Amino acid sequence: MEGEERPENVIYVGKKGVMSYVLAVVTQFNNGAQTVIIKARGKLISRAVDVAEIVRNRFVPEAKVGDIVIKTEELMSEDGNKSKVSAMEITLSK
Amino acid sequence: MEGEERPENVIYVGKKGVMSYVLAVVTQFNNGAQTVIIKARGKLISRAVDVAEIVRNRFVPEAKVGDIVIKTEELMSEDGNKSKVSAMEITLSK
Repeated sequence: MEGEERPENVIYVGKKGVMSYVLAVVTQFNNGAQTVIIKARGKLISRAVDVAEIVRNRFVPEAKVGDIVIKTEELMSEDGNKSKVSAMEITLSK
Repeated sequence: MEGEERPENVIYVGKKGVMSYVLAVVTQFNNGAQTVIIKARGKLISRAVDVAEIVRNRFVPEAKVGDIVIKTEELMSEDGNKSKVSAMEITLSK
């Protein structure tokens, strides 16, 4: 992810437990963010949906799901091969 | 799923390979459907996104992604325990 901007209100869902990302999103809202964008790729997409649902249902009930975008991203592996992967972005807003 | 309606233009993504569901969606469009809804739960949500993206990028380029809905469903297991699972619906329209 070198050189890629990571604005504070974007949470990238990776391989940690779901609650790590839930905490990250809740912290953004508690720090004053009005909007948090949850991003994930490939098999982690289902975890991103879990994160959004847990935040809404348990921690930030006033958060609404805004735009949900799906797209296909092209990844370049170390040996130069390209592969395609699905990606999703979920916008939560208070 | 007994007693549950399964309208023709809804494709439930399960544990088969991605291309099975891609074929099912493409067949619906070829049979005249203007809208196809792709539904999935839990870890299968990422497969549903793959299905939608492959349909759009390779087979039905005129299909647009409409509403994407995420929600939490409550499942009752055989021993009577309830558990919650994330669910997603992706609407594709020509």
